[in-house]
Amino acid sequence: KQECEVLFFPDNRVACKSHFIGEGCGKLGCHFSHEPNSLSKLFEYLTKARKSLDVCVFVFTCSSLADILVEAHKKGVVVRVITDDEQVDVSNSQIWKLRKEGIIVRTDRSSFFMHHKFVVVDQAFLMNGSFNWTNQAITGNQENLMITYSTDLVQQYSQEFDKLWKQFNPQ
Amino acid sequence: KQECEVLFFPDNRVACKSHFIGEGCGKLGCHFSHEPNSLSKLFEYLTKARKSLDVCVFVFTCSSLADILVEAHKKGVVVRVITDDEQVDVSNSQIWKLRKEGIIVRTDRSSFFMHHKFVVVDQAFLMNGSFNWTNQAITGNQENLMITYSTDLVQQYSQEFDKLWKQFNPQ
Ligand SMILES: [Zn+2]
Ligand SMILES: [Zn+2]
Repeated sequence: KQECEVLFFPDNRVACKSHFIGEGCGKLGCHFSHEPNSLSKLFEYLTKARKSLDVCVFVFTCSSLADILVEAHKKGVVVRVITDDEQVDVSNSQIWKLRKEGIIVRTDRSSFFMHHKFVVVDQAFLMNGSFNWTNQAITGNQENLMITYSTDLVQQYSQEFDKLWKQFNPQ
Repeated sequence: KQECEVLFFPDNRVACKSHFIGEGCGKLGCHFSHEPNSLSKLFEYLTKARKSLDVCVFVFTCSSLADILVEAHKKGVVVRVITDDEQVDVSNSQIWKLRKEGIIVRTDRSSFFMHHKFVVVDQAFLMNGSFNWTNQAITGNQENLMITYSTDLVQQYSQEFDKLWKQFNPQ
């Protein structure tokens, strides 16, 4: 069990999801990356989830990452998503796809930003940094995503997630 | 020496800089907060710097935080700042004040974002999260800022800073 890892972006190319976490990629001349990079590691961390994925992210437009949440949800992982209300309807937003598949997404209903970008997986590890779930963050921007198994940190972000989850309950 | 701490925002009120790190606040009915909050802790962490402040931040419009960098610079702390080129000229940008005072600021010169928000202090601890250095982040947004003394993490972010510092050298 490693204590921490840091993923820096941008990657040169988008990682091939099938190659890293799917049934393998049979595409001749596949133009996605089959070499490990930051995104492929993110894919792998997210697919470690067995019980819960608590995702708190400001902008969510990357369809591969949405697909991973949907696949986890279908396998019985409890997926909860918090995002910014103004980001729900931007071009390529994945929020409606998540909702259509039955994943509950809550928003801040405020003109300020729900600006966090963190995930708590199985209450076991935390991923946190500057990284929004967008294609621009993967291959364009300078970004960081820190993974830690520190129980103290995992608990503090879990508590913050639960606090916001209640606060943003629409009922 | 504590291992880590997390600051969550928003604060209810802006912390009184004079009260927490200045000569004390003599203002009767000062409308800034004299109770410790996330910003007051950020003030205190930044003023721990004795040797170096490596600041990598996407948006920098908060004048109190700029003042802390300028004061550190005047005391002989080596202050280096990396920011996004498109953010240099936004309203309230503090970048020109920093440059006027002799602090070197480098930018990404790219249409993508230099989206990091981290600081390495004295190569001893790291502050990293979603928090841009803006007033909106302090009293409006949902934000986090994680402080860690982990040598491994400090080194990885330091190396990333040095890499970008070279990459963004305008010469
Ligand atoms: Zn492939
Ligand atoms: Zn005061």
